[in-house]
Amino acid sequence: MALLDQVATPRDLDGLSDSELTALAAEIRDLLVTTTARTGGHLGPNLGVVELTLAIHRVFDSPSDRVVFDTGHQAYVHKMLTGRAGDFDGLRQEGGLSGYPSQAESPHDIVENSHASTALSYADGLAKAYAIRGEDRHVVAVIGDGALTGGMAWEALNNIAIANSSRLVIVVNDNGRSYTPTVGGLATALTSLRTNPRYERVLELIKRRLPALPGGGSAYEVLHAVKKGLKDALAPQGLFEDLGLKYVGPVDGHDRAAVEQVLAQAKRFGGPVIVHAITRKGFGYDAAERHEADQFHSPGPFDVHTGDEHPKTRIWTDVFADEMVHIGERRTDVVGITAAMMHPVGLHHFQARFPERTFDVGIAEQHAATSAAGLALGGLHPVVAVYATFLNRAFDQVLMDCALHRCGVTFVLDRSGVTGDDGASHNGMWDMSVFQVVPGLRIAAPRDGARLRELLGEAVDVSDAPTIVRFPKGPPPDDIPAVGKAGSADVLVRSGRKDVLVVAAGATAGIGVGVAERLVAQGLGVTVVDPRWVKPLDEALVDLARDHRLVVTIEDNGVVGGVGAVFLQQLSAARVTTPVRIHGIPQQFLDHAKRGKILERIGLTPQAIALGVIEELAEHETAPARA
Amino acid sequence: MALLDQVATPRDLDGLSDSELTALAAEIRDLLVTTTARTGGHLGPNLGVVELTLAIHRVFDSPSDRVVFDTGHQAYVHKMLTGRAGDFDGLRQEGGLSGYPSQAESPHDIVENSHASTALSYADGLAKAYAIRGEDRHVVAVIGDGALTGGMAWEALNNIAIANSSRLVIVVNDNGRSYTPTVGGLATALTSLRTNPRYERVLELIKRRLPALPGGGSAYEVLHAVKKGLKDALAPQGLFEDLGLKYVGPVDGHDRAAVEQVLAQAKRFGGPVIVHAITRKGFGYDAAERHEADQFHSPGPFDVHTGDEHPKTRIWTDVFADEMVHIGERRTDVVGITAAMMHPVGLHHFQARFPERTFDVGIAEQHAATSAAGLALGGLHPVVAVYATFLNRAFDQVLMDCALHRCGVTFVLDRSGVTGDDGASHNGMWDMSVFQVVPGLRIAAPRDGARLRELLGEAVDVSDAPTIVRFPKGPPPDDIPAVGKAGSADVLVRSGRKDVLVVAAGATAGIGVGVAERLVAQGLGVTVVDPRWVKPLDEALVDLARDHRLVVTIEDNGVVGGVGAVFLQQLSAARVTTPVRIHGIPQQFLDHAKRGKILERIGLTPQAIALGVIEELAEHETAPARA
Repeated sequence: MALLDQVATPRDLDGLSDSELTALAAEIRDLLVTTTARTGGHLGPNLGVVELTLAIHRVFDSPSDRVVFDTGHQAYVHKMLTGRAGDFDGLRQEGGLSGYPSQAESPHDIVENSHASTALSYADGLAKAYAIRGEDRHVVAVIGDGALTGGMAWEALNNIAIANSSRLVIVVNDNGRSYTPTVGGLATALTSLRTNPRYERVLELIKRRLPALPGGGSAYEVLHAVKKGLKDALAPQGLFEDLGLKYVGPVDGHDRAAVEQVLAQAKRFGGPVIVHAITRKGFGYDAAERHEADQFHSPGPFDVHTGDEHPKTRIWTDVFADEMVHIGERRTDVVGITAAMMHPVGLHHFQARFPERTFDVGIAEQHAATSAAGLALGGLHPVVAVYATFLNRAFDQVLMDCALHRCGVTFVLDRSGVTGDDGASHNGMWDMSVFQVVPGLRIAAPRDGARLRELLGEAVDVSDAPTIVRFPKGPPPDDIPAVGKAGSADVLVRSGRKDVLVVAAGATAGIGVGVAERLVAQGLGVTVVDPRWVKPLDEALVDLARDHRLVVTIEDNGVVGGVGAVFLQQLSAARVTTPVRIHGIPQQFLDHAKRGKILERIGLTPQAIALGVIEELAEHETAPARA
Repeated sequence: MALLDQVATPRDLDGLSDSELTALAAEIRDLLVTTTARTGGHLGPNLGVVELTLAIHRVFDSPSDRVVFDTGHQAYVHKMLTGRAGDFDGLRQEGGLSGYPSQAESPHDIVENSHASTALSYADGLAKAYAIRGEDRHVVAVIGDGALTGGMAWEALNNIAIANSSRLVIVVNDNGRSYTPTVGGLATALTSLRTNPRYERVLELIKRRLPALPGGGSAYEVLHAVKKGLKDALAPQGLFEDLGLKYVGPVDGHDRAAVEQVLAQAKRFGGPVIVHAITRKGFGYDAAERHEADQFHSPGPFDVHTGDEHPKTRIWTDVFADEMVHIGERRTDVVGITAAMMHPVGLHHFQARFPERTFDVGIAEQHAATSAAGLALGGLHPVVAVYATFLNRAFDQVLMDCALHRCGVTFVLDRSGVTGDDGASHNGMWDMSVFQVVPGLRIAAPRDGARLRELLGEAVDVSDAPTIVRFPKGPPPDDIPAVGKAGSADVLVRSGRKDVLVVAAGATAGIGVGVAERLVAQGLGVTVVDPRWVKPLDEALVDLARDHRLVVTIEDNGVVGGVGAVFLQQLSAARVTTPVRIHGIPQQFLDHAKRGKILERIGLTPQAIALGVIEELAEHETAPARA
């Protein structure tokens, strides 16, 4: 890392020669591959933006100029060029570098959010703020073609088009993919920009016809000059130009010098400009380029030489993936919807079997939810599979378009609860609180693979309301058998007197059983129930609570307004006075770390919970058990 | 209403002659004007779609074909043509016609939601469902140019562009306005379609050049035929065509026969088609056409002859509007943002005074929130003013883009609580629940005009977290003075012993005082507090609750997860066992009616609440007061 070691700030790039920059790019790729081989991480996207990031940092002057990365997982190269190359051994480890930009790490970082399609809105705001304050600073937004399928990006473009005084450069990093190939009319339009031979021919024609153009020759200036009059005849860039946005490109995103040239032109323009760069995800690392599913979008640890990922265990997603195929076979009315994450959410088996009943809508959770409402009104039953944290994007659509209209739509939330490595914005800790307000909507939280199959089956049978089925990241536990029922809830432990009632939502059932073991060992009587459906909670649980001395609720969801809170509200309304201990994720943004570490840190372990119970009961030990 | 009386179903339009249809249109306009003059309602938008709606119902066969109205307030004409003309005297009255489509009213109605930009997604889903089920039905989506600025519409267009088998006709009802003129690059593009004389000239040229075209002559067929090769030279429709969408138009939306002709062509096409109709909001009623602010978008009752609206009292919005100007004068860093509702949210005074610091982003709440985060990161303090129900559209952006990034952004939520007339989707009954989960975010609920000014001032002083300031529809009460403080909360009543603690959030303070009057008359001691900031609640309230026999919480928000629920959770955590009665809006979708009627129906009145308290205390009357 002879060269990279010398880059402490972007300005250290200024003095490097072309050949040194090429060598630096190779060093960066080495570090990307060796680091993620060990830690896992977003390898493919970062391999694709090495030259692009170098060019941006040579042409613009961060942090005075601001660089905003959309879905910041492609900011590893940016981190290396802003003084953090030496910290990559701690990537995505507790206390180490975040896998996303981080304001706490560096003044060069801004947007920490992993949710897509936000960069243009941020950048629009930043650029307008600098214009209003009279500060001479540029804002560069880097956004993928996949993220452009999100509605927010459209809203932003529509506004940026009329923000004449904004010194804003939008770099469209067009690799034709988000996780998987980008879909929709936009993708087709971009493809035609990339591949249309007419574009080049027409450009040549114009160059010959308009030789006297000031600075003539570059695609940008020529096109700009002929905008009036002949514009439409040449307009491969129509999509953006029709909105009134200046457009430069396409440029080969792996030709650093060419990218620098168009960025410099864009910088001089003084108003919003789109720079269209064509890149290849995984570029420069054979194993990634060869990887068909997603070019090593975000592999776990792997072998650097073979590119083989370490063996994976069967995860919750796999259980869902298999069960969806079974459901699809017995129910011809069931259709699957994903928002640009066919593989990650496990809909690819369903897609392979029922291609005509599977829809990838792009990074467009809003459309996923409301088109699902439409499909339901048309007589089908859609299953919308997304990561839990991303359903927040469609909160209003679930509430108004699905629930108000009594549509039978099943939302399957993968990666609910603490996810860990990917930081605050990936944790699925919101759904069991915010969706509590939705009238008629039901939420199922399976505790193991058997219950996932069972509850998914119950969910797709609901035809007059939306349902949610949510499960966490990683492998499911061995099946946890029920020893009885309490209404529709499963009783998992029933031991001795009725001292403590543990209500453990879904995947926290194992923690609940662990708590019980510890309490029973202390001579306490414990009942553990898994509600299965956490919204609505079965009224039988209220009666159970009345019979116990203490209620403990456990959920992998924020403590505010979640399952415990709603149960408390239900108990209060019934004037059941049994004290309630609510355990869940503290209502904070959690720093990245391994999932287990975080659970320990926030006290979501059998040990910590049992200890609290024992202490509380000890304080009141003179109080008799009720049964 | 000689003709309208004879129209019981759309098929009754089939036999009418041109002159009868013209007479029918006049009858419809008469009924629109006379009805809304009495009841209030969405007059302007409906006057603009009379011919369009007639044409749709003549060409398509509802309800076998489905007609989806975006932001359904322009469905009055549709209601008249589907057997409900006789019911218009009950428009927006309790038990009468809804101001939006209503599945309960008619099989011709589908989407009841008043939130914009959803129609294309619904329609995409419906059309795909019919294609999968092999049903030969068309879906017609009617969407305004304003609603096209919403990101959902883009997400839908991107998907519809590749849905080749969908029998889907998208009618863009282009009146250049939502509430106020549509903004952004899209608006500019549409304007150029409408006004470009070259378009007509080029069309003439083509017609002469290609005389042998099958069925030649119509704009649609000509443009379709020349798509290959010359397409770009002619492409005023570039915006849609670049996405791969077929486009017909523009057509004069008030020329019924012309609209019928292009709709019939679009219907025959067999795949998704966009029909671009130019209309005028308020068309055919002088007073509306002359109305500068919004062409009688949604007036209250008015005089039919003069068009004068009945005098309006000063409402909460006016207090906010004035105070924003004061804040703008003393704080040069404060900027205002509206999502296409400058007048309705009262930002027009601020805009008049500080035009360079005011942004109308279109119907784009997501962009409003995230560009506000960008403005905050750029050193300004944005105030985003929206109707409470619409902020749900930006839940994820408030959570991730504003709160995670510690951005000082003030969200001002007008029309919070029960709004009444406009039905389920307008009630602002969600915000004090769902935004409870957002770490760091603070929520203020002012009880009167003085507190609105005071709390807005406190909110814009918060620079490291988003805040919400929420107030209801209608006029504020006379100012309600505080008699003391409990932490940061105001004590409004402190009377006698500590029997009952009433915690009344914001605008329900008057109800709280009314409850106190009734309880005191029964010899009970009552304390009433207004928390002012309802998130976080001041810890002092916990101590107060401990000292009383009963806690009553009141809020104009859903009971699940709201202020009362969070207070209960706080009390439980502190092991305060005082029973709590939580009063708010039942967690249901509320049918339309006058606001007062609804509050009465749901028991959110001093009488009903006091009665419940007296009954509960009577059951426990042997229990002594605690102080």
